[in-house]
Amino acid sequence: MIIRQIHVTPVAFRDPPLLNAAGVHEPWALRTIVEVVTDEGLTGLGETYGDLVHLGKVRECAQALIGLDVHALNTMYARISAIVGNVVNDRHGLTGVANKEKSIDRVFSPFEVACLDIRGKATGVPVVDLLGGKVRDAVPYSAYLFYKWAAHPGEDPDRFGAALDEAGIVEQARLLIDEYGFESIKLKGGVYPPDQEIAAIQALHEAFPGVPLRLDPNAAWTVETSIRVAHELDGALQYLEDPTPEIAGMAQVAAAVPMPLATNMCVVTPEHLPPATASHAIGVLLLDHHYWGGLVRSSHIAAMCDAFGLAMSMHSNSHLGISLAAMTHLAAATPNLTFACDTHTPWQDGQDVVKPGALTFVNGAVPVPAGPGLGIELDRDALAVMNEQYEKCGIVARDDTTYMQRFNPTFSARRPRW
Amino acid sequence: MIIRQIHVTPVAFRDPPLLNAAGVHEPWALRTIVEVVTDEGLTGLGETYGDLVHLGKVRECAQALIGLDVHALNTMYARISAIVGNVVNDRHGLTGVANKEKSIDRVFSPFEVACLDIRGKATGVPVVDLLGGKVRDAVPYSAYLFYKWAAHPGEDPDRFGAALDEAGIVEQARLLIDEYGFESIKLKGGVYPPDQEIAAIQALHEAFPGVPLRLDPNAAWTVETSIRVAHELDGALQYLEDPTPEIAGMAQVAAAVPMPLATNMCVVTPEHLPPATASHAIGVLLLDHHYWGGLVRSSHIAAMCDAFGLAMSMHSNSHLGISLAAMTHLAAATPNLTFACDTHTPWQDGQDVVKPGALTFVNGAVPVPAGPGLGIELDRDALAVMNEQYEKCGIVARDDTTYMQRFNPTFSARRPRW
Ligand SMILES: [Mg+2]
Ligand SMILES: [Mg+2]
Repeated sequence: MIIRQIHVTPVAFRDPPLLNAAGVHEPWALRTIVEVVTDEGLTGLGETYGDLVHLGKVRECAQALIGLDVHALNTMYARISAIVGNVVNDRHGLTGVANKEKSIDRVFSPFEVACLDIRGKATGVPVVDLLGGKVRDAVPYSAYLFYKWAAHPGEDPDRFGAALDEAGIVEQARLLIDEYGFESIKLKGGVYPPDQEIAAIQALHEAFPGVPLRLDPNAAWTVETSIRVAHELDGALQYLEDPTPEIAGMAQVAAAVPMPLATNMCVVTPEHLPPATASHAIGVLLLDHHYWGGLVRSSHIAAMCDAFGLAMSMHSNSHLGISLAAMTHLAAATPNLTFACDTHTPWQDGQDVVKPGALTFVNGAVPVPAGPGLGIELDRDALAVMNEQYEKCGIVARDDTTYMQRFNPTFSARRPRW
Repeated sequence: MIIRQIHVTPVAFRDPPLLNAAGVHEPWALRTIVEVVTDEGLTGLGETYGDLVHLGKVRECAQALIGLDVHALNTMYARISAIVGNVVNDRHGLTGVANKEKSIDRVFSPFEVACLDIRGKATGVPVVDLLGGKVRDAVPYSAYLFYKWAAHPGEDPDRFGAALDEAGIVEQARLLIDEYGFESIKLKGGVYPPDQEIAAIQALHEAFPGVPLRLDPNAAWTVETSIRVAHELDGALQYLEDPTPEIAGMAQVAAAVPMPLATNMCVVTPEHLPPATASHAIGVLLLDHHYWGGLVRSSHIAAMCDAFGLAMSMHSNSHLGISLAAMTHLAAATPNLTFACDTHTPWQDGQDVVKPGALTFVNGAVPVPAGPGLGIELDRDALAVMNEQYEKCGIVARDDTTYMQRFNPTFSARRPRW
């Protein structure tokens, strides 16, 4: 099963004005779709970030993988390392400054997923079976709530409406839970002063008694603020995600608060694990195969979490169905991933490059697609439309901060802010 | 690919009187051969320990795996955990007191290897490809030297001769290197007072300049003795293996000596990794898929070692060709396993349950078998002969100490001894 062609296609899809500590989501979210084609005509799919610098690396590396067997993951990783290893100073989104290893892992990931898709198809088994087999038939996801504007400035309101206070957040939670059946709730915080977000969590706690809640201010708080907020939310939060920047800060908070701290910011490469475990900075690691180097390397990280007594959930950026399928196969094969996973799926509102039917939500959980490989099929018409959208939208890199500053020139994304 | 039958066959093969801190190898070494057969008639091979208690667990668990798909490793592990999880008080060989997780991992391992053998055969790829693909075409092994008697008492001398002092050890090294081409040397110590073993290493260092040397006294020394020996062997040893018992003792030694410490005794389950890394007790972990839960779980451990800055080698007990094949596939797929691996192969002296030809040594390294799966074939005649030997030999559990005490009634295996 030799790789003969790799198609790399950037796409853009509509994204609502979701608020976070960095600013606000732009009207278009970007992703890159990777199709790997073998000499036998099998095709595998991968999905990754759409930022131009990353897209360039994915394109460059794709050329270097032609001629390799789809099993040769170690060789692929080495080749990508040789190409990407020199790029050390790029940033990406909300997961902190990229270092060399993280950059390699991010570029490697979509190719690895596509190769596992091919191997599953060739063997007639779902990807979950290549990762050890199902430990759960469906993967629970959480309702991922965002403070948001009613519309992007100058546009008509989207169907989700505004959510600028606790009433709006509770209403949004009802909408998502009605439509998807979610049984856990996560609120993206770091947008308003902490007391306002405390009030939102308390309102959710009252409106949805017994439903596990999480709050993620993306490191917008100082250590002192984090400790104060954590104590005020004692009993209401399942875990508190990235209240403050860096492992050292998280460790100070962790030692002083009643609930576990989770992260997708201060532990994002293997080299972060020794200091994080030594300082007991976190209790929950959010897995994300997009930056942990694909599905198999993510399973290594899950084994480390098991050995070091860390619980697990899963992180999400804005994504499409290829990623949702990959996340679901991975989570279904990971025994110690017992917290509901994050997903941005509701905000994508039906837009997808994947043909409908394979991915559904039942009581907030996605049943593992049963077909071979990832169990999904590329919708080429949708891909063409989304690629056209990419070409036309004029956005080449996610930049929530600059977009926010167009409407609020004094906005600063500095963290910690409060 | 549903598992329809599992055959579990204990075997015995001749073993020379190799000396160690626990006593001396008995005339027969025991192993258990596992054959997994699918509904499509594919057969996979696994090999594990032969002790009666372990054999009983393997047999009991084999029944519980019938009807599972060969990919369902998580389910297999869960079923074996349910059966074996209650057994906590058995001991095994030289790897310390068995705990619950270690016991499960040991029973799970041969079934996992056999399932990977089947999956490789079904897909037409070698097992190394199911583990990420080759990073090396051949796996280097070390010459594994033992102090030994010329013969088991009452028998004719074996062809290896006696090795009771440094001259005998150097002669043994020459023999093994001539026959196999080994480019690293390991001496099993803990047999004679430390100064005698220091002299042996110095003699090897002189006789084989530039060849990496290791010494493994199996925790026969106190912390103080370990530190003294380590300083006397500064510059002669690549690493010092298990000089003293327990993580805490190793950490004391590690902090005071110039070379890295290796272990297959104080870190033998995932739960040992947090204290070992926190205390910097070791610099090298010896992987062994027989007790780390098979090949995939061993690859998780390798990833942990990479993240935590531990170098890697591979541990060996007396074994046959199925194990050598599995060790070779695993090592070939593990980028950070850069030290030559241990093997007892020379001491098995041609006895095997595997048909000749697939496993060879070239310059001390075993080229990865190219055939699908493990790339080896069971020799059913040899299996029958070795099973008959098992039935007749009268040994049901390895016990180097009691055997030694038959000839040296005052022998004590207490550790530390010096
Ligand atoms: Mg987060
Ligand atoms: Mg040892």
